Amino acid sequence: MAGAPVAIIMGSQSDWATMRHAAEALDILGIPYDARIVSAHRTPDRLVSFAKGAKAEGFQVIIAGAGGAAHLPGMTAAMTPLPVFGVPVESKSLSGEDSLLSIVQMPAGIPVGTLAIGRAGAVNAALLAAAVLALHDSALAQRLDEWRARQTASVAERPSDEG
Amino acid sequence: MAGAPVAIIMGSQSDWATMRHAAEALDILGIPYDARIVSAHRTPDRLVSFAKGAKAEGFQVIIAGAGGAAHLPGMTAAMTPLPVFGVPVESKSLSGEDSLLSIVQMPAGIPVGTLAIGRAGAVNAALLAAAVLALHDSALAQRLDEWRARQTASVAERPSDEG
Amino acid sequence: MAGAPVAIIMGSQSDWATMRHAAEALDILGIPYDARIVSAHRTPDRLVSFAKGAKAEGFQVIIAGAGGAAHLPGMTAAMTPLPVFGVPVESKSLSGEDSLLSIVQMPAGIPVGTLAIGRAGAVNAALLAAAVLALHDSALAQRLDEWRARQTASVAERPSDEG
Amino acid sequence: MAGAPVAIIMGSQSDWATMRHAAEALDILGIPYDARIVSAHRTPDRLVSFAKGAKAEGFQVIIAGAGGAAHLPGMTAAMTPLPVFGVPVESKSLSGEDSLLSIVQMPAGIPVGTLAIGRAGAVNAALLAAAVLALHDSALAQRLDEWRARQTASVAERPSDEG
Amino acid sequence: MAGAPVAIIMGSQSDWATMRHAAEALDILGIPYDARIVSAHRTPDRLVSFAKGAKAEGFQVIIAGAGGAAHLPGMTAAMTPLPVFGVPVESKSLSGEDSLLSIVQMPAGIPVGTLAIGRAGAVNAALLAAAVLALHDSALAQRLDEWRARQTASVAERPSDEG
Amino acid sequence: MAGAPVAIIMGSQSDWATMRHAAEALDILGIPYDARIVSAHRTPDRLVSFAKGAKAEGFQVIIAGAGGAAHLPGMTAAMTPLPVFGVPVESKSLSGEDSLLSIVQMPAGIPVGTLAIGRAGAVNAALLAAAVLALHDSALAQRLDEWRARQTASVAERPSDEG
Amino acid sequence: MAGAPVAIIMGSQSDWATMRHAAEALDILGIPYDARIVSAHRTPDRLVSFAKGAKAEGFQVIIAGAGGAAHLPGMTAAMTPLPVFGVPVESKSLSGEDSLLSIVQMPAGIPVGTLAIGRAGAVNAALLAAAVLALHDSALAQRLDEWRARQTASVAERPSDEG
Amino acid sequence: MAGAPVAIIMGSQSDWATMRHAAEALDILGIPYDARIVSAHRTPDRLVSFAKGAKAEGFQVIIAGAGGAAHLPGMTAAMTPLPVFGVPVESKSLSGEDSLLSIVQMPAGIPVGTLAIGRAGAVNAALLAAAVLALHDSALAQRLDEWRARQTASVAERPSDEG
Repeated sequence: MAGAPVAIIMGSQSDWATMRHAAEALDILGIPYDARIVSAHRTPDRLVSFAKGAKAEGFQVIIAGAGGAAHLPGMTAAMTPLPVFGVPVESKSLSGEDSLLSIVQMPAGIPVGTLAIGRAGAVNAALLAAAVLALHDSALAQRLDEWRARQTASVAERPSDEG
Repeated sequence: MAGAPVAIIMGSQSDWATMRHAAEALDILGIPYDARIVSAHRTPDRLVSFAKGAKAEGFQVIIAGAGGAAHLPGMTAAMTPLPVFGVPVESKSLSGEDSLLSIVQMPAGIPVGTLAIGRAGAVNAALLAAAVLALHDSALAQRLDEWRARQTASVAERPSDEG
Repeated sequence: MAGAPVAIIMGSQSDWATMRHAAEALDILGIPYDARIVSAHRTPDRLVSFAKGAKAEGFQVIIAGAGGAAHLPGMTAAMTPLPVFGVPVESKSLSGEDSLLSIVQMPAGIPVGTLAIGRAGAVNAALLAAAVLALHDSALAQRLDEWRARQTASVAERPSDEG
Repeated sequence: MAGAPVAIIMGSQSDWATMRHAAEALDILGIPYDARIVSAHRTPDRLVSFAKGAKAEGFQVIIAGAGGAAHLPGMTAAMTPLPVFGVPVESKSLSGEDSLLSIVQMPAGIPVGTLAIGRAGAVNAALLAAAVLALHDSALAQRLDEWRARQTASVAERPSDEG
Repeated sequence: MAGAPVAIIMGSQSDWATMRHAAEALDILGIPYDARIVSAHRTPDRLVSFAKGAKAEGFQVIIAGAGGAAHLPGMTAAMTPLPVFGVPVESKSLSGEDSLLSIVQMPAGIPVGTLAIGRAGAVNAALLAAAVLALHDSALAQRLDEWRARQTASVAERPSDEG
Repeated sequence: MAGAPVAIIMGSQSDWATMRHAAEALDILGIPYDARIVSAHRTPDRLVSFAKGAKAEGFQVIIAGAGGAAHLPGMTAAMTPLPVFGVPVESKSLSGEDSLLSIVQMPAGIPVGTLAIGRAGAVNAALLAAAVLALHDSALAQRLDEWRARQTASVAERPSDEG
Repeated sequence: MAGAPVAIIMGSQSDWATMRHAAEALDILGIPYDARIVSAHRTPDRLVSFAKGAKAEGFQVIIAGAGGAAHLPGMTAAMTPLPVFGVPVESKSLSGEDSLLSIVQMPAGIPVGTLAIGRAGAVNAALLAAAVLALHDSALAQRLDEWRARQTASVAERPSDEG
Repeated sequence: MAGAPVAIIMGSQSDWATMRHAAEALDILGIPYDARIVSAHRTPDRLVSFAKGAKAEGFQVIIAGAGGAAHLPGMTAAMTPLPVFGVPVESKSLSGEDSLLSIVQMPAGIPVGTLAIGRAGAVNAALLAAAVLALHDSALAQRLDEWRARQTASVAERPSDEG
């Protein structure tokens, strides 16, 4: 979406099952985003042009999800001054432990703010992007406060056997 | 420091050996910060009052470092709308694997952008905070670009046996 | 339940599938308990008021179950003098290894007595709470002895192909 | 010490380097204890007679430390109705991960309240024992409260470069 | 079975699903065995009497399978001079990694020859017991040689799509 | 297949479910191969004669897949001057972590180029073999370039909810 | 040593620092042994000839130590009917976890009785070999009983600060 | 070196302590190489130009070493048709486990032949490159054979206490 402040990129179509949860959270918070497939390994040129052009495209925050030897978040961070938040997608054999370490263990100099493995991480990447954008968007800040208040209110006092 | 945009908090004095690298990076980039010890376990009241008051104090980004069963970043995030970046401090027995998982595996709803274990993570937390602040501070954005250009220029073409 | 000596708290409704096994064991042993949802991350105020008030409410032992970056047991222990027993709930991606390390690796000063991951841990948290209460309740001590005698007697001599 | 409410047992002399921290914490809190070497593997008869006789000896809580394939806490728990708290001693090759799993992953039926690997776990086992004893010893409860208040007060506001 | 040279012991009925593969391998090799449930934690007296009496009962090799904090093989080895072979039974949360470390990481002084996690380990415990017995039983040695020759012969030259 | 440049060997019929993906990739690239079962453990003589004779048979690259304590790739490499690429087959209990470490952690002197666990690793072993063969086969080099171009072209711009 | 019942083999000279502890234990028990370097990877022919000839040489038990991708114990077991006990030597990067998994996770059909990582495992391999030999050597059985009695007697009642 | 068939690239000067072992092995085998620092994160443009131009520069094999979230080998492989061999450099906190998973767990489509963590992996990357080059260089093939024969001959028959 033109002019969207958030880009959601992912290494493959199969990552969408995880990353759509980031998109849904942004939808709820009323934050426009652009979701694209950018494979660090299969489309390296697309990676370079996306990452180098992301700021000029108007993005303010990049959410990048990938699994296995997940190089997308870190390589994007290497080519943009924008904050990059990484989501380790659960991998088949190693349950996302490889994804997590490939994303979080960046060397000093190029940061990736990493979230939890899988769906929770995708949701939280959206919420973290929202927190960043809310620093200069008081209407969004209020929506985010309300969202959290609803979240708090939704926690029942006692567990239910029907739960 | 009054009016500093970045808070650096840590669970104990011993974490400063790691977290000072965040402070040094912020110094280089000319970003004021306030470094405090806030122990989630030994000073829970201080944690609550810091986290709930952080936005009103004028902070825009919180960097939180802790080791072992590291609850400081996540509990801070639970009580502030500000973006929180977590630094897993290397632990004695498990090399920071416990710190990393305690910080990064937050449930959906409360995000912590997690950096690498140890010194690299502390430096990168500062750089990520800078990237967030630079979204609305073009002078900082330029300093950050220059910092990265210097970093790129500092990489020698060939390895040196004296290295 | 008013005047119950044991509180069972958990981070979310979904943890009840695990923690109900603690409740069932307490039921069998005739120990009253109060089961509540207290989310460290989504309801931090509830956490503070529960933990600080737990002793005054008459609780003697707290059983706390949580998964992932599980901060509930440790944060509760930080705000109560009562013994806290933690149950790592199995997490989706990392099988509860993250839950276990987040709970057990507490720094010196604030203890959490940690049980096994999942159902076994929930049952054992109840039995450990019973062992503590039985120190000053000889009727309970006798029920606990009988329970263990029945458990021993229930172990067949030889494996059965129908087993 | 005759009539001591706490037994500290450990698998070998070498574990004392870790377990003495439990003893020191009990000393500070004014809780008598008896420290013994009981090797599950090298002195199984001593294990059986200790565990079966512990309640009759007047112990109320047992702290058991061991490393590697650490069977002492669990086997003691199998033969006493007293609460048993386990301390995983850091092992040479696997940093105590083997000790931790051997102690904490007890099957349903026989609980061991497990603390952190190494010194922190030893200190915390003592504090947890104190919390249990304080349930029926108001003087101890007050000493424990004071100890925690001093601990809280000892946390400096800001990190020190001399730290 | 009276006079059987091999004892197969396991911690619970549920371990039989794994350990029956040891029994089947012994059946094929014509080696009598006695399969019993001996729970280190729920039936410690049975453990002591079994382990101390195993040599007098005529056993020559003990195969012990257990899962989680698996203390049965090591505790048996502590109380018998007979060779003990341990089989880590796959555990629910940690896939048998806890079982493996609890069995294999025995301290110097009390050995347990440990096999692979799960079914393969059970089969191999039987084969290892057979190798030990075959040292002084040439008929068994020949049956074992034939068994291995058949195993070698059963490996097809090429993979089959029907496989 | 006589004169095939690539051998695909695997430890058992069950590994074919993984290794057939290597075969399919070679088929697509038009590279002849010979697929055989060679069990390091059950058919050690076949291993020795295959590995020692592989170069004389005309093979140029060997792809070896195995799971668990996976010795086939390393032992083959010990007896041939040909490049050996190893594929860790996913194991039942440990998800292929054992397979991976058994293959990749070869001591200095005998290399095995190791690919990812499971299907991806099998496909990539074929592609790596192709890259080696393409060094002196320009027609293959062109086919490989085209294959990669198709792969790049197949990556959609945006994720699809139907994906 | 000609006619020795135990062979101690290891993958390299550097493993001797670990495996000499097996030799010392055998010395104490009066069991002759022959210690040799047999590298599965660098001397595969020596491996084949050793393993195939071990029974004819008069060996009854083989102790095999190796580190990293440790193939020596399993490959030896593949070519001898004798019982093979494996010792995972601590590796540089992964602390012997790779050695352990490479040795213990053998597929059904070829067993290796695996001991603990490092020195403890080497000592215990010797003790397990002794237990096997003692089945038909009553003098050795008595020496082994005495050794264990001394071991039990050497465990002090209480920890010593000088320890 | 102009016209060298092997490129050795690494992420930073500090990796040279590991990667020089690859260089030394190539020196011994008489294979020219060019060693360069190419940081995927700090010099992404250099990475792109190196990887895309490597074939045209005349390289035939690329050896790439990196640590932590090690993206260099995989990103290079994404932009060259040449075979890429990856060396996981030992990392500070996680001992190279992060490096290993970041390199080896590549998705289907882009292969990296991965060697062991650290020095052994660097040496073996050189040997694997040599094996590839020797396919069409009989003089090198002979030197490699001689090197391996010397390696085999250098293995002593028996361990030495002076070792």
